[in-house]
Amino acid sequence: MVTRTEATFFPPIPEAQRWLKGVDFPADRPLINLSQAAPADPPPAPMRAAMAEMLEDPASHLYGPVLGLPALREALAADWARQYGGTVASAQVGITAGCNQAFAATIAATCGEGDEVILPVPWYFNHKMWLDMSGVRAVPLTCGATLVPDPEDARTLITPRTRAIVLVSPNNPCGVEYPAEVLEGFHDLCAEAGIRLIVDETYRDFDSRRGAPHALLTRADWDRTLVQLYSFSKAYRLTGHRVGAVIGQPELLHQIEKFQDTVAICAPSLGQRAALWGLENLGQWKAEQREEILDRRAAIEEHFAPLAARGWRLLGCGAYFAYIEHPFAEGSATLAPRLVREAGALILPATMFTPEGDPSGDRQFRVAFANTDRAGIAEFARRLAQVDGPLAAPGGAA
Amino acid sequence: MVTRTEATFFPPIPEAQRWLKGVDFPADRPLINLSQAAPADPPPAPMRAAMAEMLEDPASHLYGPVLGLPALREALAADWARQYGGTVASAQVGITAGCNQAFAATIAATCGEGDEVILPVPWYFNHKMWLDMSGVRAVPLTCGATLVPDPEDARTLITPRTRAIVLVSPNNPCGVEYPAEVLEGFHDLCAEAGIRLIVDETYRDFDSRRGAPHALLTRADWDRTLVQLYSFSKAYRLTGHRVGAVIGQPELLHQIEKFQDTVAICAPSLGQRAALWGLENLGQWKAEQREEILDRRAAIEEHFAPLAARGWRLLGCGAYFAYIEHPFAEGSATLAPRLVREAGALILPATMFTPEGDPSGDRQFRVAFANTDRAGIAEFARRLAQVDGPLAAPGGAA
Repeated sequence: MVTRTEATFFPPIPEAQRWLKGVDFPADRPLINLSQAAPADPPPAPMRAAMAEMLEDPASHLYGPVLGLPALREALAADWARQYGGTVASAQVGITAGCNQAFAATIAATCGEGDEVILPVPWYFNHKMWLDMSGVRAVPLTCGATLVPDPEDARTLITPRTRAIVLVSPNNPCGVEYPAEVLEGFHDLCAEAGIRLIVDETYRDFDSRRGAPHALLTRADWDRTLVQLYSFSKAYRLTGHRVGAVIGQPELLHQIEKFQDTVAICAPSLGQRAALWGLENLGQWKAEQREEILDRRAAIEEHFAPLAARGWRLLGCGAYFAYIEHPFAEGSATLAPRLVREAGALILPATMFTPEGDPSGDRQFRVAFANTDRAGIAEFARRLAQVDGPLAAPGGAA
Repeated sequence: MVTRTEATFFPPIPEAQRWLKGVDFPADRPLINLSQAAPADPPPAPMRAAMAEMLEDPASHLYGPVLGLPALREALAADWARQYGGTVASAQVGITAGCNQAFAATIAATCGEGDEVILPVPWYFNHKMWLDMSGVRAVPLTCGATLVPDPEDARTLITPRTRAIVLVSPNNPCGVEYPAEVLEGFHDLCAEAGIRLIVDETYRDFDSRRGAPHALLTRADWDRTLVQLYSFSKAYRLTGHRVGAVIGQPELLHQIEKFQDTVAICAPSLGQRAALWGLENLGQWKAEQREEILDRRAAIEEHFAPLAARGWRLLGCGAYFAYIEHPFAEGSATLAPRLVREAGALILPATMFTPEGDPSGDRQFRVAFANTDRAGIAEFARRLAQVDGPLAAPGGAA
C-alpha cells in the first residue's frame, strides 16, 4: 500500500536545511542562504502599525468567509483588471492561505485520480508534489535552452486524460519571463483542447517588463480556460501570514470552496486584512521593491560574467531566481552539501526541480538571489569562484 | 470524469449562510446563529496586547519551520504530557494551520486511493468531505441511542483496506464525551488490526470531566496506533489565526511534513506565537472559559426540559454542541430554512452529518450553543417552542 504522501518525495527546503546541521559558519563568513524565495525582512513599519490597530477589531481574530474577505476579493479584482487591462469581477477571485494552497485547491477542483497535467521542466517542486499526492500524473514538457516551453511541444503531450497545463511566469525555478505570445499560444491550445491553463503569477510584481505581461484577460470568456494564481507573500513581505489568491471562473471557485473549507476553513483573517491594506497603501513602496529586486538581478548578471571563465553558466535570471550550471564532474545533489561546507552557501540542486534521471538535474542549480543584497551577491559569486574539483567532460553539460 | 472536489458535497456552513439571504431580522429579534462552533469574541486583551508586541519581531511575519515553531511544539508536548499523564516529546507534535488541516494531513499520510476509514455516524462533515476528496471510502459506524460508538461494532467493519478509525471526543456534532474505556477499547482494536486510531480532541478543554479523558498516553508505544488532533481556535479564541496540531509518531509527522509544505508551507507565524503565549499565560482564563461553557450546557439542559412537551428531545449535550430531535413531519433539511424565517434561528440539519438516506438525518439537528450566552439560549428555546407544523407519526423518530 502507498499512501498519498508516500507517493511523493520529501520537501526540498527542509531537506536542504538538514545539510546545515553540524556545519560551523564563522562570524566573519556567515552562511549565504539562497535556498528559499522568501523576503528576509518584515513588512514596512506603516503596515505593521496598521496591523497592530487591526488587532483591536474582533473580526481580525474570527473566521471569515471560506473564499476570503469580500473587500479583499474586490480590491484584488480591481487591481487585476487595472494591471492586465481586462475585466475581472470579485466573484472571479478567491483568497487562499498562500499560493501553494491556491494551486492545490485548483488541482483538486480540476482533476481526479489518474488524470494528467502537463508541467514544463524544470518545475516548481511543490506543484509536482501535489500532483503526486493527488494521484495525478505530471507529464514533463521539455523546454530546451531558452527555458521557455513551446505550445506546439505541449500539443503532442495532450491525451484524453489531460486536464490542465501549468505555467509559472516569471518562472520559479528558472527566473525566465515568458513572452506574451507564448502565453497566448498556450491559451489557444488549452481553449481548443477544452482544458485549463493554470498560470502561477506569484512573481508578477517583479517582472522586468512594463505593463501587462500578457493580454489574456482582454479575451472574451477568458475564465473558461485561464486560472491565475497569486501570492501576497513576496510583494508585501507577508510570508508568515499565509495569503494568496486564485483568479478564475466562479463555478471553479465554488468547487474550490469545498477544498478550502475542509483544509483551511479560511485564510488567516489578520493576514487578509494586511493584504488589503497593502493593496490600498503600498503601491509606491512595491514599485521601489521591484526596482531593488531588478538591481539585484543586474548584480547577478554582473558577477556571473567573470565566473564563465571558471565554467559556471547563467542560464536564466529574473524575478527572485537565477538558474545556473556548474562546471564540475559531480552531480548537483552531492555538490550542494559540499557548497554548504566549502563555500558557506546554500542553494538548491536542480534534481529538486526535474524528473528522476533528467541529465540537466545533475548539472544545474536554482539560486534564490532575492534573499540577499548586492554585497551578498558579490560575496556569493566570490565564494563560488573559489570552489574546486574535477571538471565535467566538455559537452557533458545538458 | 469526476474531480476530487466533485466527489463530495458543498460545505454546510456557507450553504446554511445562504438561507439567510433575503430574510429580515428585526432589531428587537435578531438572528440567533448557532450554526458554527466559533467563539464570537476576540482573544482577551492581554493576549491582544502581546500579539501587538509580537508584530515588532520580524520572525512573526516570516515563514517558520514546516512542522511548526520548536517552542510551540515543546510547550504543547509538555502541556499534553501533563494533561494526559503520559510521555509526549516535541518530536511527536506537529503544528498545522487549524485542526481541519491536521486531519487532512493525517489522512494523506495514512491512506491511498481506494482505502477505507471507519467514521461513527453522525460524523463531522469536513472529515467526510476530506475522505471523499482523497478517494477514501468513509465506512459509517452506527452509534445507536447513546451516540457512543462500540468497538465491537467497528470490528465487524474492518477489511484489508481499512487504514484508520476516526473518533471525535468530546463529539462534534453530538456533544457526547466518550468514556475512557470506550477509547481504550478502540485503541486495543486498532492496535490489534494494525491501523491508526485518530482522535480529534478539539473540544478537550471543555470536557465536563476532571482530569485526563483517557489513559491512552500512559501506554507503551501509544504512538504506533494513536494520533490526536487539536485546535487552538476554541480554547484561546484564535479561530481566524488558523493554528492546530497533530500529536503522533515522528515517522508519521515526517510524512505529514510533505503535505504541510505543499498545501500550507507552514501555519501562520503570528498565530503560532499567540498560541504559545496562550499556553504559557492563559491557564486560569481557559479554566474560566470552561466554566462558562459548562454553564451554557446546563442552560441548554434546563431550557430543553420543558420543550419535551412539544415533542423536542435533547439527545446529546456537551462541549460546544447539543444534538436535538424535532417533532415535525417534515425533514430537517427543509425545516432548517423555515426556522431561519419563522424562529430567526440558524442551526444545521443532521442531514449534513449523516450518510444520504439515513433516517436520523431527517429528524435531528446540531446546535452549536457555545456561540451564545444563557439569555440567548433561553430565547432560542422560547422561539423553538413557538414553531408549529404537522407532527411526525409517533414512532417515526429514529
